[in-house]
Amino acid sequence: MVELMGNWKRTHMCGVLNLAHIGQEVTLMGWVHRRRDLGGLIFIDLRDRSGIVQVVFNKERCGEEVFQKAEAVRSEYVLAVKGAVVKRDPDTVNPKIPTGEIEVVASQLKILSVSNTPPFSLEDDINVSESVRLKYRYLDLRRAEMQRNIILRHRITKWVRDFLDSKGFYEIETPMLTRSTPEGARDYLVPSRLHPGKFYALPQSPQLFKQLLMLSGFDRYFQIARCFRDEDLRADRQPEFTQIDIEMSFVDVDDVIALNEEMLADIFKKALGIELSLPLPRLTYKEAMERYGTDKPDTRFGLELKDVTDLVRDCEFKVFSGAVASGGSVRAINAKGCAVKFSRREIDSLVDFVKNYGAKGLAWIAVEHDGLKSPITKFFTEQQLSSILQRLEAEPGDLLLFVADKDDVVFQALGQLRLELGRRLNLMDKSKYNLVWVTEFPLLEYDEEEKRFVAKHHPFTAPMDEDIQYLDTDPARVRSKAYDIVLNGVEIGGGSIRIHTTEMQEKMLNVLGFSKEKAWQRFGFLLEAFKYGAPPHGGIAYGLDRLVMMLADRDTIRDVIAFPKMQNASDPLTDAPSEVEPKQLKEVHIRVDA
Amino acid sequence: MVELMGNWKRTHMCGVLNLAHIGQEVTLMGWVHRRRDLGGLIFIDLRDRSGIVQVVFNKERCGEEVFQKAEAVRSEYVLAVKGAVVKRDPDTVNPKIPTGEIEVVASQLKILSVSNTPPFSLEDDINVSESVRLKYRYLDLRRAEMQRNIILRHRITKWVRDFLDSKGFYEIETPMLTRSTPEGARDYLVPSRLHPGKFYALPQSPQLFKQLLMLSGFDRYFQIARCFRDEDLRADRQPEFTQIDIEMSFVDVDDVIALNEEMLADIFKKALGIELSLPLPRLTYKEAMERYGTDKPDTRFGLELKDVTDLVRDCEFKVFSGAVASGGSVRAINAKGCAVKFSRREIDSLVDFVKNYGAKGLAWIAVEHDGLKSPITKFFTEQQLSSILQRLEAEPGDLLLFVADKDDVVFQALGQLRLELGRRLNLMDKSKYNLVWVTEFPLLEYDEEEKRFVAKHHPFTAPMDEDIQYLDTDPARVRSKAYDIVLNGVEIGGGSIRIHTTEMQEKMLNVLGFSKEKAWQRFGFLLEAFKYGAPPHGGIAYGLDRLVMMLADRDTIRDVIAFPKMQNASDPLTDAPSEVEPKQLKEVHIRVDA
Repeated sequence: MVELMGNWKRTHMCGVLNLAHIGQEVTLMGWVHRRRDLGGLIFIDLRDRSGIVQVVFNKERCGEEVFQKAEAVRSEYVLAVKGAVVKRDPDTVNPKIPTGEIEVVASQLKILSVSNTPPFSLEDDINVSESVRLKYRYLDLRRAEMQRNIILRHRITKWVRDFLDSKGFYEIETPMLTRSTPEGARDYLVPSRLHPGKFYALPQSPQLFKQLLMLSGFDRYFQIARCFRDEDLRADRQPEFTQIDIEMSFVDVDDVIALNEEMLADIFKKALGIELSLPLPRLTYKEAMERYGTDKPDTRFGLELKDVTDLVRDCEFKVFSGAVASGGSVRAINAKGCAVKFSRREIDSLVDFVKNYGAKGLAWIAVEHDGLKSPITKFFTEQQLSSILQRLEAEPGDLLLFVADKDDVVFQALGQLRLELGRRLNLMDKSKYNLVWVTEFPLLEYDEEEKRFVAKHHPFTAPMDEDIQYLDTDPARVRSKAYDIVLNGVEIGGGSIRIHTTEMQEKMLNVLGFSKEKAWQRFGFLLEAFKYGAPPHGGIAYGLDRLVMMLADRDTIRDVIAFPKMQNASDPLTDAPSEVEPKQLKEVHIRVDA
Repeated sequence: MVELMGNWKRTHMCGVLNLAHIGQEVTLMGWVHRRRDLGGLIFIDLRDRSGIVQVVFNKERCGEEVFQKAEAVRSEYVLAVKGAVVKRDPDTVNPKIPTGEIEVVASQLKILSVSNTPPFSLEDDINVSESVRLKYRYLDLRRAEMQRNIILRHRITKWVRDFLDSKGFYEIETPMLTRSTPEGARDYLVPSRLHPGKFYALPQSPQLFKQLLMLSGFDRYFQIARCFRDEDLRADRQPEFTQIDIEMSFVDVDDVIALNEEMLADIFKKALGIELSLPLPRLTYKEAMERYGTDKPDTRFGLELKDVTDLVRDCEFKVFSGAVASGGSVRAINAKGCAVKFSRREIDSLVDFVKNYGAKGLAWIAVEHDGLKSPITKFFTEQQLSSILQRLEAEPGDLLLFVADKDDVVFQALGQLRLELGRRLNLMDKSKYNLVWVTEFPLLEYDEEEKRFVAKHHPFTAPMDEDIQYLDTDPARVRSKAYDIVLNGVEIGGGSIRIHTTEMQEKMLNVLGFSKEKAWQRFGFLLEAFKYGAPPHGGIAYGLDRLVMMLADRDTIRDVIAFPKMQNASDPLTDAPSEVEPKQLKEVHIRVDA
C-alpha cells in the first residue's frame, strides 16, 4: 500500500494556505490528523508543523482509484496529496483554524507511510502516564503544545546567541571528557580504554575551562553547554541539563548585571512581548532573607516577614522570649484579611505546614473587629500587643502568624509559609514576571556535619573587596561578589566575580579546609594558570531548561526537553541505560560489582 | 604588588585606538606584550584580543610612584592603565600595527596580576612540543594565530545557525547519556548508579534521535552536536568532536544537496570571500573511483586515471594480461612532463610508494623525444603501444604509470599515487577550494573478515528506488541515496536519504545478517517508531572541526579546538583521565580490572 515519494515535491506547508491561494494547484505532505466520511466525500485534516488543512476527496473529482486509497487512510498515516485550493462554502468555514476559509480538493494521493493506532491521543492536555509519553516520545512530540515548547526553546537559544554575538562574545566549546574534581555534586564517570584504571568525568559545568578562556584573553565567552550531575532526581532535575554559560574579563558585579539585564530584556520582549523595566530591582542576601525568608524571593506579592524580636524579648510567652534569649529571633507575617477568610481548621493546617520546615510551632493572633483572638495574647502586656500590631500594620480581619526559633529555622518556615499563603490566596499572578537580583551572598557557610566552612556558591567566587580583611579573622562575616537572578521565586541563573590570583585562591581553599598540598593536588592546574597573568573576570550561568520552562509556562523541565529521562534517570524509549557486551567492559578495564 | 581593579572601568579596547582618539583620556586593560626601557622612558606594548597599543611611561608625566611600578612590570603582567592618546612623532610611527600612529601617555597604572616567565614565546609559528602547548593551553591560546582560529570557529558556527534558522530549521538538543548500539565505532560507556550493572553510552552521532525528530513532525532539524568515538587516534582524530547535524522531511537527494550548496556558498563567501559557482559539480561513486581512484577526489588538479584494460588484455606482459584474466584491471596515470622532471631514482621511489598501498608494482613508460624508455615496452606490439599512448594522450616528456591488479588495489594505489604526484609537482593550489559531491555510493560492501555485507554508510541509508529490486537477488549491485561532500580531497560531510518504513529497515538489517529477533533487540525502538507514520526524510552531517581547520588553513583539527586531547586521548592541562576515589567507583557498581 505504501508508495515511494518519487519525484513529487512539496509546494506548500499545510498551515499557510488561505484565500490568497485559491485556484492554485498544490502538493502537500503531512500526517492524517483526522478523517471523516460523509456521504461519498472523504474529509482529511492533513497536519504538518505549520498547522492543519482540510483535504476533500470527491470520487467524481479524484477518480475511483484515488478515492479507494483515501478510504484506506487512518489517523497518523503520512500522505502526499495533489489538489486545488478552493474557497469553502460560507456555512462550512471553520474560524478556529487559520486555513478555515479554504480546503484542498484532492486529485492525486500517495500513502507514504502507514500507522498503527497511536497509544494515546495527540491532542493537548492529555492524561497519560509520563512513562508512556516518553516511550512514544516521537508521538508525544507531535502534539501542538510540545511542538510549541521545543520551538520556543530553539528561538530562545537563537536570541541568546544573537544577543551575545552582537556584544562581542565568542561561543567556545569546552571538553565533555574531562577530569573528576569531586567538590560539588557527584560526577558521571567514563572509564578510559587507553589508560587502564583511569576515568574521565563529564562536566558539571564548564566553570574552570571558561576561567581558563579568560586567562587566554578571549575577553568575552559564552556557551550553551550540556552539563551533567549524578544526583538523586527529586525535584525537577535531569541527569543532563543545559546551561547558558557566560564569562567576561575586566569586569565587576555591576558590569555583569548590566549586560545580563539587557539580554533578559531582549528575551522577554521577544518571547512574551513584555518590556522589562531596567535596571531590575536588587536585594542583598540579608534583605531577601529578612523580607522574604529566602534568597529566591517571589516578589509578585507582599506578605513580607517582619522582625518583632525586640518587642517580645521580655514577654511572658516563653516560646518567644526563650528563642530570643538563645540567640534566635521572632518574626511574623501579617496574612491580610485571613482572620476572616480562614477557618480555625485552616489555621491549624498552617501550623502543621510550618512543622514540615523545622519550626516547632506557629503562633497566631486573629485581629477581629471585636478584638484579638489568639491562644497567646494572654502572655503579652497591652503595651507589647499594641507595638506588635503597629509593627505588623495590623487591621481588623488580619491574621498574624509568628515563628520563634534560630534565624535559619524562622526564615525557612516563614519563607515557605509565605509561599503557601500566596498559593492559598491566589496571589501568584501568572501574568507577572518579577525578576530580582540577589547580591552580597555570604562567601561561606558553616557545614555542621563536616565541621568546616563550605563555599556558598563555589570555591572560585571572589570575596567583596571590603570584606577581604575578615577572611582570616571572621570568615562567616565575609560577603562575596556573587549574584543570583530570580524569576517569580525561581532561581534561573547565578554567577560571581571570580578569584584571579594564586594567593587568594590558595587562601580560599585553605579556609575551606584544604591544605596547600591538597589544594594543589586537586586544583593545581588552575593555581598554576593564575601564575601567568590572569585578568579579573566574572560571569554567570543560566539553567536553560528552567528558563524555557518558565517562559513556556510549563510545570516541568521535561516538557521543554525533546528526550528527557525519567525520575530514575532511565529512558523508556531507547531503554538506556542498558547492559553491554562483556567485551566492551573488558576493553575499558572494568568489571561490574553489583 | 597586585592591586584590585576597584572602580576603574575599561573605556576602550587596545587595538581600536587611532588618530580619531587623539586627546582622549582612556582606560585600557590588557597584557604586557613587550616592555622596553629607553632612557627615562618605559614603553609597554599592551595587548588584548583586539590588538596591541603602545603605552609610554614618562617620569615627569606620571610621577615617581607610577614610574616605579612600570619599571617592575614584566611580560604577561595584566595591567590597567589610564592615560591620554597622543599622536606619535612621524619617525616613530609603526605602520605594522593599526594603532601605529598613536600612543598612550600613561598617567596612572594598576598591576592587576603578575606573571612568571611563560614557558614558550607567545608569537606565531612557535616551535614547541604539542604536550607543552596543551599543558599551558591558556598561554598557547593567547597567540594571535590561535585566537584567529577559535574566533573563526565561533563565526562559522554562528553563520551556520543563522543560515539554517533562516531556512526554518530548529536546533534541537538530543541526549548525551544514551544507549550503546555497538554497530559502528567503539562507544564511550558511562556506568549507571541507579541501575547497577547497566551503562549509558555517549552518542557517536545523534543519528537515531534526529530521525525520531522527523517522525515527530519537526520537519527541519539541526544541531551542532558533540559526538564521541573511542577509536585509536591515528590520523587527525579526537575522542570527542563536533558535528553540524542536519535532517529534513519530505525530501529526496536533490533537495538536501540544494540546501547544503546554498549553506556552503554562504559560509565560503563570509569566511574566505569566495563565490562558489552553484550547482557544485557531482560525481557518481563509480566515476570518482574510475577517474580519481578514490571517493574523496581532490579535483584541484588533473592526472586522472585511465582504464587501459581492454588494450592490454592480450598483451605479452603477463602482469597486465594476468590481472585482466583474473577479473582485475589495468589503469594508468599520465604524469605530464615527468619523464623530464623525474630522475630514475625518483621513478623508483614511486614504485616503492605504490607498494605501501597494496600494489605489487608500478610499471612505467617514459615518453622521450627520441622514443619510449621503459622496462616493459618490449612486451607490447607497436599497435598496442600506440593505442595506449593515444588513450593516455601521451606527449613527449610524459611519464606513464601503470598498476594492474584487482580493481580495489588499482584504485587505492593509483589514487594515492595521483595525490603523491600532486604534492611532488606542487599542483595542490592552496588558493583553490574545490568542492564536489560524490553520489550513488554502493549501499553495501562485502566484509571479507566477517563474511557478510556491511553498510557502506550506515544501516539506515535508503537504497536508490530503481535498485530496490536487487536487494534480495544481488545486494552488491544496489546503490544508495547517500552523498558525500568533498573539499580538496577531504570529506567534510556526508549523509543520505534514510529508510522510513519498518519493512525496508527490517530487510536492510536482514541483508546485514541480523535475524529479525536480533534486529528488534538492537534497533527495536526505531522499527517500532516506523509503525506510527514516518515521513520520508534525509540529512547530512559535517565534521565541524575539519571544516573549520580547512577554512582556517591549518594542518590539524587540534588547532581549531580550544582544549583538544593528545593522540593518547589525554589532556596534559587537567591531567584527564585520572584516578578517582574508590567510593566513586563503588557508587556506580564497578571495579577496576586492569
